[in-house]
Amino acid sequence: MYKQTGTRLQSLPQEAIKMFINSFDTVLTDCDGVIWLFNDALQGAPNVINRFLEMGKKVFFVTNNSTKTRDEFLVKAKQLNFNISRDGIVSTAYLAAQYLKSQKFSKKAYVIGSTGIVQELDAVGIKHTGIGPDVLTNGLASFVNEELKRDPEVGAVVVGFDEHFSFPKLIRACSYADDPECLFIATNTDERFPLAHCVIPGTGSIVRCVETAAERKAFVVGKPNPFMCETLIREHGIDPGRTLMIGDRCNTDILLGTNCGFQTLLVETGIHKESDVEAWLKSKDPEDQKLVPDFIVSKLGDLLDYLN
Amino acid sequence: MYKQTGTRLQSLPQEAIKMFINSFDTVLTDCDGVIWLFNDALQGAPNVINRFLEMGKKVFFVTNNSTKTRDEFLVKAKQLNFNISRDGIVSTAYLAAQYLKSQKFSKKAYVIGSTGIVQELDAVGIKHTGIGPDVLTNGLASFVNEELKRDPEVGAVVVGFDEHFSFPKLIRACSYADDPECLFIATNTDERFPLAHCVIPGTGSIVRCVETAAERKAFVVGKPNPFMCETLIREHGIDPGRTLMIGDRCNTDILLGTNCGFQTLLVETGIHKESDVEAWLKSKDPEDQKLVPDFIVSKLGDLLDYLN
Repeated sequence: MYKQTGTRLQSLPQEAIKMFINSFDTVLTDCDGVIWLFNDALQGAPNVINRFLEMGKKVFFVTNNSTKTRDEFLVKAKQLNFNISRDGIVSTAYLAAQYLKSQKFSKKAYVIGSTGIVQELDAVGIKHTGIGPDVLTNGLASFVNEELKRDPEVGAVVVGFDEHFSFPKLIRACSYADDPECLFIATNTDERFPLAHCVIPGTGSIVRCVETAAERKAFVVGKPNPFMCETLIREHGIDPGRTLMIGDRCNTDILLGTNCGFQTLLVETGIHKESDVEAWLKSKDPEDQKLVPDFIVSKLGDLLDYLN
Repeated sequence: MYKQTGTRLQSLPQEAIKMFINSFDTVLTDCDGVIWLFNDALQGAPNVINRFLEMGKKVFFVTNNSTKTRDEFLVKAKQLNFNISRDGIVSTAYLAAQYLKSQKFSKKAYVIGSTGIVQELDAVGIKHTGIGPDVLTNGLASFVNEELKRDPEVGAVVVGFDEHFSFPKLIRACSYADDPECLFIATNTDERFPLAHCVIPGTGSIVRCVETAAERKAFVVGKPNPFMCETLIREHGIDPGRTLMIGDRCNTDILLGTNCGFQTLLVETGIHKESDVEAWLKSKDPEDQKLVPDFIVSKLGDLLDYLN
């Protein structure tokens, strides 16, 4: 009834809000900007999440951040008083490993990324080339003609967030990906994270770089790609029609919900606000329409009033 | 008459070929894959170029390679027996400097690139931040919070080929380009250079990376952007209708010709062949049609027979 209308939830009668709360059994929520911001829980978010769990709803924290393992996210969640379990954490490092496992991948992965990815690969027994700096010491000609050794065991390229991303890594990745048999996986395509005094490039900028040189597209496991939903449906039997996706970024979180047939809720504690939604509602581009959430609230904690 | 028909030049009667030769006063030619390959002239190419010059035609070597200055290209051309002068060399490092000059740019340029760019900037008195390695030594948080100093004088980001491209460079470039007043220039967008045993990423992969993180498009001075033609028309008064563009790559060289209203000739000593042209001729995509040259020859040297 409120599908993709951008309705302010609290404008509805109490009764309609209760119906909405009862309309989902499963909650998927983004992390940064929704339940926490850096190292602090957002006001009321732990109470809402814990109340959902007490009500018997399944809750999953779904994040495009590929730098941490599920266990590391679990530690952070526990510290911030979220009663989530390990099964409730879905990160893109984990998903990349799950994807390779689902492909019965038995070769070695060349990784542009950080500890999250290689530890999740280790956890499912997938060999990889390791991480860390890879810099040019003797110039390009020497690197290409003498130092560059192709590892014949490599059968996949995995690209995630990598603060040590460099030209030699780019050469290796696109040279492996040049073989059409080589799998080519990206954790996510988030463009960037604007801070007050600078811009931190997102994984998406690294992915576009490798894709351009490789002249092929990566398979993206993170939001908004429905691979994440398919994994949850397969492993936890969730019902898309009775699932709610909560997020602060419409082109990842809300679009994931739209792509998977979930209900969607935008919180205004992160990237996008009601004014963005209003612009998309007026747009004639059907791609913009896909970004419109069903409901909007200022912050997740506002739901608490309706959960008792 | 043969406009964008992909006609094999030598299939025409001798008389028609002579008419074609007389139909242009100016020749623009790509370098790698057309007149030379790495450090060797292609067979007959110096004779054809020198004969054009003797016939009184203006000749320009136009290359997207941003790693060398015009003077360095001139030395190479002389060594390979091309009687070209400095004015006849148009490279993207030179064009980037010309573009900034045309904008009356008086601030400092942040450069992702190599010696070609900074020397051409020096030649027109434009300040820059220098080139070379820029690697993360103490981790991302330390870099962003302590080491990253923004230079308030920087008013342009210039992106060319850079074997030292790294995540810190990416952070600096997209943080400067985040200011809409900051000029954002790319030398070219060539995707890559496939070698026998690996793939060398082209400037285009670096450009797409910075563009994604900056969330804006760079102004591209190289082929196929008509900026190059505009510069030649302004500085040398060339007549597009009586100009021939020769190239081996249709999505840069031939497209430049199409974009500028030049006649076009594809040589098959580099990237694209007649079979590619046949596919584009059959395509219904108007963008593919723009890649079709007027004429095709196996190699530039084949023209020699018609120049005496």
